Amino acid sequence: MSKAPARTAFVPHDLTAPVAGAANGPLAGLTAAVKDMYDIAGSRTGGGSPDWLETHPPAVSNAGAVQRILDAGATVIGKTVCDEFFYSVSGANAHYGTPVNPRAPGRLPGGSSSGSASAAAAGACDFALGSDTGGSVRVPGSFCGLYGIRPTHGRVDMSGAMPMAPSFDVAGWFASGPGVFRRVGEVLLGHAQVRSPIRELVVLDDAFAQADADVAALLRIALDDMGDDLPEQRREPAAPGGLDPWRECFRIIQAGETWKSFGDFVTRHRPKLGPGIRERIEFASKVTDTQVSAAREKHVQARDHIRALTPPGTILALPSAPCIAPRIDTPAEELESFRLRVMRLTCIAGLGGLPQVTLPVGTIGGGPIGLSFIGWAGGDEALLALAVTLSRYCGYAA
Amino acid sequence: MSKAPARTAFVPHDLTAPVAGAANGPLAGLTAAVKDMYDIAGSRTGGGSPDWLETHPPAVSNAGAVQRILDAGATVIGKTVCDEFFYSVSGANAHYGTPVNPRAPGRLPGGSSSGSASAAAAGACDFALGSDTGGSVRVPGSFCGLYGIRPTHGRVDMSGAMPMAPSFDVAGWFASGPGVFRRVGEVLLGHAQVRSPIRELVVLDDAFAQADADVAALLRIALDDMGDDLPEQRREPAAPGGLDPWRECFRIIQAGETWKSFGDFVTRHRPKLGPGIRERIEFASKVTDTQVSAAREKHVQARDHIRALTPPGTILALPSAPCIAPRIDTPAEELESFRLRVMRLTCIAGLGGLPQVTLPVGTIGGGPIGLSFIGWAGGDEALLALAVTLSRYCGYAA
Repeated sequence: MSKAPARTAFVPHDLTAPVAGAANGPLAGLTAAVKDMYDIAGSRTGGGSPDWLETHPPAVSNAGAVQRILDAGATVIGKTVCDEFFYSVSGANAHYGTPVNPRAPGRLPGGSSSGSASAAAAGACDFALGSDTGGSVRVPGSFCGLYGIRPTHGRVDMSGAMPMAPSFDVAGWFASGPGVFRRVGEVLLGHAQVRSPIRELVVLDDAFAQADADVAALLRIALDDMGDDLPEQRREPAAPGGLDPWRECFRIIQAGETWKSFGDFVTRHRPKLGPGIRERIEFASKVTDTQVSAAREKHVQARDHIRALTPPGTILALPSAPCIAPRIDTPAEELESFRLRVMRLTCIAGLGGLPQVTLPVGTIGGGPIGLSFIGWAGGDEALLALAVTLSRYCGYAA
Repeated sequence: MSKAPARTAFVPHDLTAPVAGAANGPLAGLTAAVKDMYDIAGSRTGGGSPDWLETHPPAVSNAGAVQRILDAGATVIGKTVCDEFFYSVSGANAHYGTPVNPRAPGRLPGGSSSGSASAAAAGACDFALGSDTGGSVRVPGSFCGLYGIRPTHGRVDMSGAMPMAPSFDVAGWFASGPGVFRRVGEVLLGHAQVRSPIRELVVLDDAFAQADADVAALLRIALDDMGDDLPEQRREPAAPGGLDPWRECFRIIQAGETWKSFGDFVTRHRPKLGPGIRERIEFASKVTDTQVSAAREKHVQARDHIRALTPPGTILALPSAPCIAPRIDTPAEELESFRLRVMRLTCIAGLGGLPQVTLPVGTIGGGPIGLSFIGWAGGDEALLALAVTLSRYCGYAA
């Protein structure tokens, strides 16, 4: 055997036993893994950092989202590894190791909800809770061949979850099957908001231009094949001034808020930080209030633009990620440029506060790739229903 | 792009629209794909053979298993490709093409329930109906990284399904998630039979000896890790006189009964038969009643032995397949020896009429491999519960 078998989705401080949910409910009999940023009563929450873990007491109660899935009948089977302080989309963790990408072993799982995606993709559970600030559900969903959602900002209860950058933080989840994916939404989203049929489809040209040629080609073929189940395509860019200013605006606010979340801890405890995380935390420590204020003004403009593009009834199509998962041994500088490319795509729904689903449409050279749809604010249910309708198209291989 | 994207799990004569199930029920909101051997009212059933398809009228009513999942709320989204006349475990179909193995593109999906496994593994549905005579759920389940079950012979309604070798034919199903996998069982198995806690675990030494060294090593590591959730291991062979006599006994009865099922049709219509199928149908046509009678006597002895080894409370562990999926371009003669190795493993539960589950424990060099447990007659529910308990161990990579 070339390597020892590895089961690396779960943290070393995992639950000692599964937490059983209610006997009845829409998720009865289903099992879930939970990102180690959500409190589980009696257990410590680590956020991907052994130093954070050591310096924090066990949780007294369950996070809101965890309690909801338990009340709906799901059994929580374990706590999953994530990128340190959620400050990466690669899925690597220098302390706990990188969770296996079961759908493309040898490649990164994507992050920061890496272990949740790994567990769901391995069949270790029926669905898994993650969170998404700058792509942390959408990227691992794409790389691990899963359904994944970033809901409308503010829709899912984040009480008892570690904050990173609250302007963008949302709870999200993964599943292998479309019906299960939707059913979890019925539990976590609560009452439906802003109902509308889907009447318009905008294909985001500038987003597609960020993707590798083979990725863009496969996703366009899939979109064309799905024509009977989608409105006619209209092509338009998301950002008339280019995606980079949006990405930079997102980066500054994210950094400023992340330092608010973790700066005190970092200053006091000087935790060991893994590669990439260290540099970004260092950058975050230097972002000034003036920079953040300027970025917030741009954020308002960007959000207004994105929301105007996405009124109730309109959805936007884009690649979930610009490429299939990079190899585990990708050098640090390449991962940095990979991060830039990713954030150009993920900042769109992030700045807009809009919901986005990723569908596991197929594989390229054995690596999964997702097709994403952004919906209108409060239109999460329409996206979940669309994911079910379009699921039968999944299974392309190039 | 090296190859055109392909979505090959579904038959060309697929449903024109999904068949919606009941509004409520344990499978409400879940979607299913169905092997093209089960009747769906208004649609023709092909059994992997375009000639069979052409010469048979549309089904008047739904097969029993299809009706059950519809009544439980599932929506049937499509009919899936299978190996011609179910007479292969490779997953290739010379007429419709070989369904993609979404978890190991470039490799065979396994068969004969190839398209059902392909669709479930691609996330095109929440679960998929297959059938298993000589491994047709267990092998594609292993190769495509899915949960799969061959239930106790006779437990699941086979009305409205094409027969192949009725002494061994059973309905089965696949799912990516363990809870969904079990829930489908609650619908298809009906009332629970022969309840018992699992008290004994026999590791079948002769079955493990059939597997590639890396497969056997990974599965043994998984079994050891699962120790807290399993009884102590006892090692014993399944077949004291060797597995080959059992495999040969199975082969003769299967051939004799397959000729009874399809001989008239083949003689009258002279269908074009794909490689491998052609040779086996030719062999089946020559098996004599005397040979079958002699094999039936051996079958009784083998079944008695296997059932004595598996009283209520005892389960047997074995590899689901001897290897990861062979590459698509594997030469015919290699596929023949592959088939021999497979049947040495699959004939055990087949001759015993016993239930067997395969769990997607991990991947080797990117190819999924399953760990199987055989249970006692009527102990299907205990195996499904065990699959849920052990699911959290899934995710090895070697």
